[in-house]
Amino acid sequence: MNNCQQNEFLDNIRANDNFLIISHVNPDGDTIGSALAIAHFLKRLNKKFVIINEHVIANKYLFLPLADQFITPDKISERFDTVIAVDCADIKRIGEKVSTKLADTIKLFINIDHHPTNDFYGTLNIIDANAASTTLVIYNLLKQCDFELDYQIAVNLYTGLMTDTGSFKYGNTTSQSHLVAAKLIDYGINVYDIADRILETNSINQLKTIRDSLATLEVDETGKIAWITVVLDCNHESFVENDVEGLVNYPRSIEGVEVAISFKLTNDNKVKVGLRSKKYVDVSKIAAAFDGGGHKRAAGCTIAAPLNIVKEKIIDEITKHI
Amino acid sequence: MNNCQQNEFLDNIRANDNFLIISHVNPDGDTIGSALAIAHFLKRLNKKFVIINEHVIANKYLFLPLADQFITPDKISERFDTVIAVDCADIKRIGEKVSTKLADTIKLFINIDHHPTNDFYGTLNIIDANAASTTLVIYNLLKQCDFELDYQIAVNLYTGLMTDTGSFKYGNTTSQSHLVAAKLIDYGINVYDIADRILETNSINQLKTIRDSLATLEVDETGKIAWITVVLDCNHESFVENDVEGLVNYPRSIEGVEVAISFKLTNDNKVKVGLRSKKYVDVSKIAAAFDGGGHKRAAGCTIAAPLNIVKEKIIDEITKHI
Repeated sequence: MNNCQQNEFLDNIRANDNFLIISHVNPDGDTIGSALAIAHFLKRLNKKFVIINEHVIANKYLFLPLADQFITPDKISERFDTVIAVDCADIKRIGEKVSTKLADTIKLFINIDHHPTNDFYGTLNIIDANAASTTLVIYNLLKQCDFELDYQIAVNLYTGLMTDTGSFKYGNTTSQSHLVAAKLIDYGINVYDIADRILETNSINQLKTIRDSLATLEVDETGKIAWITVVLDCNHESFVENDVEGLVNYPRSIEGVEVAISFKLTNDNKVKVGLRSKKYVDVSKIAAAFDGGGHKRAAGCTIAAPLNIVKEKIIDEITKHI
Repeated sequence: MNNCQQNEFLDNIRANDNFLIISHVNPDGDTIGSALAIAHFLKRLNKKFVIINEHVIANKYLFLPLADQFITPDKISERFDTVIAVDCADIKRIGEKVSTKLADTIKLFINIDHHPTNDFYGTLNIIDANAASTTLVIYNLLKQCDFELDYQIAVNLYTGLMTDTGSFKYGNTTSQSHLVAAKLIDYGINVYDIADRILETNSINQLKTIRDSLATLEVDETGKIAWITVVLDCNHESFVENDVEGLVNYPRSIEGVEVAISFKLTNDNKVKVGLRSKKYVDVSKIAAAFDGGGHKRAAGCTIAAPLNIVKEKIIDEITKHI
């Protein structure tokens, strides 16, 4: 971000009055915190705004200041000429129903994000691919605008920073992440309370899914391959997408395991395979053998075959690389 | 800590040559990281040292620089005149076998700790009850001694800070915790790797215990009380003490649950009851009704009765407070 951008941002905010704040589908802590921090910023400037999301946000985020103002697209009839999208790497991430609310008359589309893949779909694009979270991009933006933060903004910015870094555990965590966290704490936020509400809270269905999936835990004879079969006990598609992915971390966590697998039965009788490795196996090669893809340490594929056949094929393939 | 203390510390280190570094029984990340940071400090000053612990440290800590030099008391024959104990709130925390290695001739006992309950058992006591970890006390001490840190010391200091704050989630996390984390990252440490090895690693027995305990998960009709029965599948007593306690966080994590319980069958046919609450129930009162104790949000008791009777009694008592 350069000086021109921050001036352009401020000029645009000042010149307009009705804002639509958009966060991404299946909203997580970073997109929610970013949207609410921007909302508080606009509120302080006496601007009107609507906060929209394709989906309903999870209950555990409702304690965040202004979170009660999130609405779904069916609830609004107005058309907006000014949009701020946060944490959306491309325009599809705003969701189909939200898209229908965007009139052709939009004159200003501000795109604030931290994804390296962001394709600059806005009329003003404030992107920092080095930032651990979009809330960090917003923190820097507001600081450069000489805008004094407050408790409400700090809670929301911290939420995005905490969730997108896995509470300062992921590889995107830098010394800057910690320096900003220190500054935000100085606004009086309670990090224990925020972490407890967001990171330590599961719906009963989530916990039942963890329980049922763990019950299927298996480890091969070598102790290097471990897997679970995900038993879905929930009808919410958003739940499935957001939470099933993390289950593979249970077999992955076992000391000595190199490759962890999750087998997830889909509704159309296919098996979705999630693969994780720790040190030396390139799981993208294993996924590629079944027309899947991914990275060295995290990959996946979908196979149309009965579960027992899929298990055998995948484990055989992994064994070649162990 | 005052200037006199840091000078006394440095003078004492300089005046002696053979150090015994002691960490507490059932060692955790803070006591291990503290011991190893002190070891590196002494190594840089060309001092001789032995690092001792009552128990064998867990495999997942063995990547820490100098961790391979931890030994158990049976492995040493020397007697020491200079001792540095880290993260031990009282002398009993060093362990019985370690105690036998302390000769009457000890002329210097340096006690470095952050527990508010520390009883100043040392001849030199460097205690900061406001520090989130003992490694933070050591960080401040070394800084005040104008001692330049290095990568090896930073990894160990970060390990204690990360583990004792639950990766910056617990209530002891302050802006200072984050500021120091930022400084330590600048020494080139890989926070993802450290967190992955320590926080995201379970022994197969630990994971089986999680699995078997979750299989017993129950929630009462109101959705406000949830419990698990801990099925021990492991003979290591240290494992039991360190890891079973955290299992109560699974039922506690359920949205809407106010009181979570873990029922653990002990070897002598008693039931050890762990209690956690979220917002308003004072679980210390429930524990007190069964001659137990604790705090408002975390308490426990032990009852000599069959499991089904204990469950009924405890849940009945909780129901009075819900």
